Amino acid sequence: MSETVTDHTGQPFNRPAFESLLKRRFFFTESFEIYRTASGFKGDNRGLFDYGPPGCALQANIVDLWRKHFVLEEDMLELDCTALTPEDVFKTSGHVDKFADWMCKDPVKGEYLRADHLVESVLKARLDSDRMGRGTKFDHPDGTCSCEDVKKTKVKDINPVKLSDSSIKEYEEILAQIDNYDGEALGQLIKRLDIRNPDGNNEVLPPIPFNLMFRSTIGPSAAAPVYLRPETAQGQFLNFRKLLEYNNNIMPFASASVGKSYRNEISPRSGLLRVREFLLAEIEHFVDPRSGKKHDRFDEVQHLELPFLDQSTQLAGQTTTKHLSLGRAVEEKVVNNETLGYFLGRTYQFFLKIGVDKSKLRFRQHLAKEMAHYACDCWDAELLTTYGWIECVGCADRSAYDLTVHAKRTGEHLVVKESLPEPISIERWEALLDRKKLGPKFRKDAKVVESAVSALNQDALEILSSVLETDGQVTIETSGPSEGDGSVTISKDILSIKRISRVQNTREYTPNVIEPSFGIGRILYSLLEHVYWSRPQAVARGVLSLPPSVAPTKVLLVPLSSNQCFRPVIKTLSHRLRVLGIPYRVDNSSASIGKRYARNDELGTPFGITVDFDTVKDDSITLRERDTMQQVRAPMEDILAAVKNLVDGVESWEQVSKRLPEFASQGQEIEE
Amino acid sequence: MSETVTDHTGQPFNRPAFESLLKRRFFFTESFEIYRTASGFKGDNRGLFDYGPPGCALQANIVDLWRKHFVLEEDMLELDCTALTPEDVFKTSGHVDKFADWMCKDPVKGEYLRADHLVESVLKARLDSDRMGRGTKFDHPDGTCSCEDVKKTKVKDINPVKLSDSSIKEYEEILAQIDNYDGEALGQLIKRLDIRNPDGNNEVLPPIPFNLMFRSTIGPSAAAPVYLRPETAQGQFLNFRKLLEYNNNIMPFASASVGKSYRNEISPRSGLLRVREFLLAEIEHFVDPRSGKKHDRFDEVQHLELPFLDQSTQLAGQTTTKHLSLGRAVEEKVVNNETLGYFLGRTYQFFLKIGVDKSKLRFRQHLAKEMAHYACDCWDAELLTTYGWIECVGCADRSAYDLTVHAKRTGEHLVVKESLPEPISIERWEALLDRKKLGPKFRKDAKVVESAVSALNQDALEILSSVLETDGQVTIETSGPSEGDGSVTISKDILSIKRISRVQNTREYTPNVIEPSFGIGRILYSLLEHVYWSRPQAVARGVLSLPPSVAPTKVLLVPLSSNQCFRPVIKTLSHRLRVLGIPYRVDNSSASIGKRYARNDELGTPFGITVDFDTVKDDSITLRERDTMQQVRAPMEDILAAVKNLVDGVESWEQVSKRLPEFASQGQEIEE
Repeated sequence: MSETVTDHTGQPFNRPAFESLLKRRFFFTESFEIYRTASGFKGDNRGLFDYGPPGCALQANIVDLWRKHFVLEEDMLELDCTALTPEDVFKTSGHVDKFADWMCKDPVKGEYLRADHLVESVLKARLDSDRMGRGTKFDHPDGTCSCEDVKKTKVKDINPVKLSDSSIKEYEEILAQIDNYDGEALGQLIKRLDIRNPDGNNEVLPPIPFNLMFRSTIGPSAAAPVYLRPETAQGQFLNFRKLLEYNNNIMPFASASVGKSYRNEISPRSGLLRVREFLLAEIEHFVDPRSGKKHDRFDEVQHLELPFLDQSTQLAGQTTTKHLSLGRAVEEKVVNNETLGYFLGRTYQFFLKIGVDKSKLRFRQHLAKEMAHYACDCWDAELLTTYGWIECVGCADRSAYDLTVHAKRTGEHLVVKESLPEPISIERWEALLDRKKLGPKFRKDAKVVESAVSALNQDALEILSSVLETDGQVTIETSGPSEGDGSVTISKDILSIKRISRVQNTREYTPNVIEPSFGIGRILYSLLEHVYWSRPQAVARGVLSLPPSVAPTKVLLVPLSSNQCFRPVIKTLSHRLRVLGIPYRVDNSSASIGKRYARNDELGTPFGITVDFDTVKDDSITLRERDTMQQVRAPMEDILAAVKNLVDGVESWEQVSKRLPEFASQGQEIEE
Repeated sequence: MSETVTDHTGQPFNRPAFESLLKRRFFFTESFEIYRTASGFKGDNRGLFDYGPPGCALQANIVDLWRKHFVLEEDMLELDCTALTPEDVFKTSGHVDKFADWMCKDPVKGEYLRADHLVESVLKARLDSDRMGRGTKFDHPDGTCSCEDVKKTKVKDINPVKLSDSSIKEYEEILAQIDNYDGEALGQLIKRLDIRNPDGNNEVLPPIPFNLMFRSTIGPSAAAPVYLRPETAQGQFLNFRKLLEYNNNIMPFASASVGKSYRNEISPRSGLLRVREFLLAEIEHFVDPRSGKKHDRFDEVQHLELPFLDQSTQLAGQTTTKHLSLGRAVEEKVVNNETLGYFLGRTYQFFLKIGVDKSKLRFRQHLAKEMAHYACDCWDAELLTTYGWIECVGCADRSAYDLTVHAKRTGEHLVVKESLPEPISIERWEALLDRKKLGPKFRKDAKVVESAVSALNQDALEILSSVLETDGQVTIETSGPSEGDGSVTISKDILSIKRISRVQNTREYTPNVIEPSFGIGRILYSLLEHVYWSRPQAVARGVLSLPPSVAPTKVLLVPLSSNQCFRPVIKTLSHRLRVLGIPYRVDNSSASIGKRYARNDELGTPFGITVDFDTVKDDSITLRERDTMQQVRAPMEDILAAVKNLVDGVESWEQVSKRLPEFASQGQEIEE
C-alpha cells in the first residue's frame, strides 16, 4: 500500500528538515500561534494557518497562473460571491442535511475522531507492524500514508501484530476503498475488527454524522441563521440567469470563482492538507446535456497521456494506475465524456506549468458512495506527498442537480431557451389555474400553490389529470416553509389539466454542470514537497526548485558587502527590475555571500545577481541560477534582458548559460 | 450641509439611471437574489452583494494597482491570515467589549435602527422641510446626504416644519459632529428633540450597544467560540515577531493584507457602501515612537496639496476644507507626524491613479469620541457620492496599543531590540522569583505568576518593593482565565524586588503602528459614481470613463457583421491581444455597431477595434476611443502597438489620435 517518497534526486524525503525550512522562512504558520501557548487559552483552533510573505506570494502566483490558464484562456465569467449564505440556500442544495462526516467519540478521553481516518490509521498500523515482524522493510518512516491519525500511532505502542494472509488481504481491500463506507458500514468495521482509539486504546462509540458547516446568525434580532459556504459553487448557480444573459445567451459557457471557503473539520491534522478555512478556485462549466457533453477544444488535449486509477481497479483492491491518452479514455468510457476529459487534460497541463512532479500525479475516480450528494461522476487529481496521495482537484459532473433544486425552491426558471431550427408540433399536458378564484381561496399562499403547480412534470400531470377527473380535486406537495404540512388540495373549479397540442419554436433545458474545483492550499503544500531537495554538501539547508513563474521572488540582489559604493548600482538595478515588473528582493545583510545564497535557495528564488567591485568599474554583474549554482557574467543590460527572458519563459537557463560567459565561482560554497 | 452632486459634465447626477446600468451590466447584484422573492424565505440578509464579471475584474484591477502602488513599491511584507479568530484574541484587542454600534428598537414595529443614523436622518429631513417652506431650493433630490435612513423619510410624510434660527444652528452643529456622540448622548438627543422612527412615527427605546462581530463555534464539541474578523489587522499584529525576523530585524517596516472582513451591521442600506462582508486592504506600518514618526520618503509627497477638514473646523460646526501642502500640514501639526502624512499623500496619489475625481475627495480628521478604541489620531479619506461624503480609507495611528495588549495577555515579548551605539549604564528595578519555591507553591499557575511579574513596569515595581518590605508579601493582578479572582499573593521568600545598576547594550521598545486601511468596495462604488456620465444625445445610455488601468476589459473586438470572412482576423487579433496580456472581449452579436459600442461604453471599455470588409483586403483596422468617440484607422500592427501604449499609460489618446490617420465615423451614432 504505502510507498517511500523520495525527492527528485532519489533521496528519501526528509520531512522534519522540510518542515523546519517552511517555518524558518515563514511560508506559513499556525494562526494566532502566540496564543496557543498562552496560559488560559482554550479552544479547538487547529486547522487554521496564516501565510507569511513567501507563502502569500506563492499562493498569489499560483492563483494568477490559474486565472490565466483557465479563466482568461476560455473567457470564463468570474464572480465574487459572499461566503455568508442564508440557511435556506444550503437546505435546498442539500448541504444542511448531507454535508457531514462520520465521527466517533472516545467517551473516556472526550475526544472526537473521524471514523474513516480511525479505521485507516489502525489497519495501516497493523499491516506495518506485521511487516516489521516478518522482517519486511518498514517503508514509510516519515509517515508516508494518507492517514492523518497515524502520527499518533507510534509503532512501539502496538503489540507486534501477526496477521494471517487472509487478514492482510482483507485489510488491503478495505483500505483501497475506504472512501466507499458510510457511517453504518464504518461502525460495523470498527466493531468487527476491534478498532480502538490508538491514543489510550479505548473503545469508541458508534459513528454519528457531524455537519461540516460553520453556523452563525445575521442582524440584530439574531433570528436569521447563516452558514459560511463550504464551496464557492452555490453562488455561481444562484447567479446562473444573470450569467447567461451577460454571455448574450450563448451556450456552453463557464463561470469561475476564487474565494475562501470554510469547513468545520472534525479533527484537522496534516498541516495545510486539512484545514478549516481555505482558498478554493472553482469552475462551473454549463453544458447542454443533449450535446453528449462534447467539448470543441477536446482535440487540443486528446493526445495527453494521463495516469488513471478508475473505479473498477479500486474495487478490485488495487491501486495501480493505467496510462491512457485522453482520447482513448473517453472513447473507452473510462472517462464519461469529452468535457470532463477536457478539464482533466487542462488540469494536467496546469500542474506541469506550476512545477508539479509528473511522477507524483494521478487521476483517481471516486467510488459510488464516496461521491458528494450532488455528483454523478467525479475524478480527483491527486498528488503524492509524504502524507500519501492527496486530493488536490475534484472534477465532478454535478449533472443538473443544483440548478434543478434551486429552481424548484424559488420558482425561478433556471433554464436555457434555444430557438429550434424548425418549429415542431408537440402534445403535452398543461395545468391551468383560475386566478380569479385562486387568490381569494389561498390568499398569501397563492404564490406557493402556483409554483407547486408549475413545477409538476408531464408524468405527474398525466396522473393528476385522471385523479382530478375522478375525485374532483387533487393534493400536491408544496415547498417553502409557509405551508403547514407541505401539501395543498385544489379542486377542479380552480385547476384544470388538459392535453394540448402546440407548435414549439424553442426548446427549454436545464444545463448540466461540469465542475473542476481546485484546493489551492493543498496544491501549494504538495508542490512545495515536490520541489524540495537538499544538496549532498549541505543537507541541513534545503532548496525549493520552484519554477520562475510561481517563485515568490524572482531575483535576489546581493551586494558583495555593506560598502557604500554598491548603493547606486543596487538602486539602479532595483528600479530597472521594478519597471520590468520582476519581483526582487535586496539582501544587504552582513552575512557571507554563500550564506545569503543558501537562505535564498530556501526561499525558492531562481536567480541571484551579485554586485561586486568590478561592477562599480565596468558595469558587469554576475547572474547565478539556483538549481545548478552556475554563474554567468555580462554587462548589466545583457543580464537584465536574460532575466526577463528567463522569467517570461522565453529562454531556458541552459540557453542563457551557453550564450553568456561563464563566471568562475566565488564564495559560492553553501554554508550551513 | 448637503450639496448637489453633478457628473463631470456638470449635469445633476442621475442615480436611477446609474443604478440601472450597474444592474443591467452585472457589475454587482444582491447575493442570493432569486431567494429574496421566494415564498417562505426568511431572514435579514441585506448588506450582502455578489460581483458579476465586470465588477469582479474592476475589483481585481483596483487591488492589483493597490498592491503595486503600496506593497511592491515599498517592499511591504504581505500576509494572508484567517478570518476565523478565537474569542480570546478579540477579547484582548478590545473588540468583544467595544466593537459595537448603538441601536434603538422600535417596540411597535420590532425594527432596529442605528441610533446615530436615526438622529441624522430626522434632523436632515427637518432642515430640508424648513428650507422648502422658505422657498429655498431643495438641493438633494437624489438623497445626497450621508445618512442612510433618509430614503425612507419621504418629505411629504413629515408635517412641514418651521424651525427657529437657533434650532437650525443647533441641528447643523449636531450634524457636523454626529460621529462624536456616544450612546448616552444620542439617547438624550433622541429624547430632547423628540426623534422617532420616520417609518410609522413611533417612539424608540433608548440606545443599546450591539456588537458587530459574527460569532460561531469551532470543532465538534462546539465549546470554542470564534469570531469572523472585522478587520485584517489583528492577524498582522499576532505575527509581528515573525515579520520582524523575516525583515532581518530592520525597522521601520510595514506588513500588508488584503482579505474579506465581516461586520454584522445593524441595518445596512446604501448598496455597496455599508455591507456585512467586504474586502479590506490594510497596511500596518511599524515605527519606532522615538523617531518622531519621521518617514524617509516624506520629501516625495510633501509638495502635494490636499483638502483637509480638521477637528477644530468640525467642532465649530463647519465643513469647509482647507487646502494645504502636506509639508505645511505636518509643520503646523494639522497632521500629527510625517508617517501619517506620507500615507495620506500616497493615498491621494493612488486615488488619482484609479480615476477618482479630485474635486470629490477630502481628508477628514476623526473627532475624539468617533475614534476607534485603539486609535490616538485618525484621518479618513472621503469620497463624495450621492450618499454624501463616504469614508473610503481610514488612516489611523494605533500607537502601541495592539502589540502591548497582546504581549501582556500572551507573555510574548512583542518588542524590537536595538543595539545602542554606545552602552549606557542605567539603574532599574528588577523582580526576581525563586523558581525552586515558585513551582511547588503555585503548581500549574506558576507560568501565570511568572508572566504577571514580568509584565510589571518600573513604577509598579518601585511601589511593590516597599509593600514587600513592609508587609512581607504583595498581591498582583494576573491575566488569563485560569486564575480564580485574577490576582495572586506572593510572599518575600519567593519574590524579591531590587534596584540594580546595569550596563545596557541594547534598547527594547514596542513599535507604534500607523495603519492605512482601504475599503475596496466603497472605493469601487464611489469611483463608479465619479466616472459615470451620459452623452446629451443618448441620456438613457451611460458611459463609465474608467481609466484603462482599472477598466474591466481594455478592448472590445467588433466584427462588422456575422459574415464568416471576419473570423480569421478576429482569431488573429484575439491571439495577439492575449500574448500582449491585454484583456479583451469579442462582441459578435447581431446588434448594430452603434448598439454594441453603446453597450461597451456602459462597461467602461476604453477602446474598440472594428473589423470590416476593408480589413480583409488590406489588413487595416479601426480603433475607437470611448470618451471622445474619435476613431483612427491604420494597419493592424500599428493599432496593436498603439493599444499597448495606451493600456500601459505610455501614450495618451490625444497623442495617438494626432499621429494616426483619423477615420470618418461610420455607424457611430449611439443607439438607445
